Amino acid sequence: MRGSEYYVPGEATSDLRPAIVQDDETGEVLMLAYMNDEALRLTRATGKAHYWSRSRGKLWKKGERSGHEQLVKEIFIDCDEDTILLKVEQIGGACHRGYRSCFYRTIDGTVVGEKVFDPEEAYGKEQGD
Amino acid sequence: MRGSEYYVPGEATSDLRPAIVQDDETGEVLMLAYMNDEALRLTRATGKAHYWSRSRGKLWKKGERSGHEQLVKEIFIDCDEDTILLKVEQIGGACHRGYRSCFYRTIDGTVVGEKVFDPEEAYGKEQGD
Repeated sequence: MRGSEYYVPGEATSDLRPAIVQDDETGEVLMLAYMNDEALRLTRATGKAHYWSRSRGKLWKKGERSGHEQLVKEIFIDCDEDTILLKVEQIGGACHRGYRSCFYRTIDGTVVGEKVFDPEEAYGKEQGD
Repeated sequence: MRGSEYYVPGEATSDLRPAIVQDDETGEVLMLAYMNDEALRLTRATGKAHYWSRSRGKLWKKGERSGHEQLVKEIFIDCDEDTILLKVEQIGGACHRGYRSCFYRTIDGTVVGEKVFDPEEAYGKEQGD
């Protein structure tokens, strides 16, 4: 399949692929998560982003607790067919720390992102969704 | 280090981190590559993107053969400190197939990207850089 001009989802391996999530309107990069075939299938079937959680070892729908869902507008695949790009409408914020984007800091630690919700209110004592 | 508010580069592990590469001006997502600590150090020191090639098992400077370098404008780290975001000025095209972005196809295989160079001319018979 690698190297083919066309990507056939049914031929996808069960390997996890990183999925870059980008705001469809502003172009802001919101987060990176991982998808297996089932997460991709659910995302396409429902129009809402689903991922595979490597830490929890299970599928999750983004926003399943917080309501901060991602409505998927377009899905792209890269040249090597090992990375996915989702363009989404992000409800609330993508980051479990309450920021719009997970990339709210420069590499030197300066906070540049916009805090848009209170994580404790959205998730309780849990780790986000 | 995970969970700290500030990222201290010297404390980084040698684990590979995915690095999302975004056009600094247009916001277009160009590619995803992987960085270890040395790639990040070289990138910061030179202002040009360096990565770790998993397939070749070595460091590489983007554009080392083709001249299609990435001039790094800003570097961000995500909440979990396991993903990097680079905002760059991309010389030529990012994709080894000659497209501006590696995400030149939708998940259904429709080519939507812009071809900006001839890969054979840029790389010869090699696999890109």
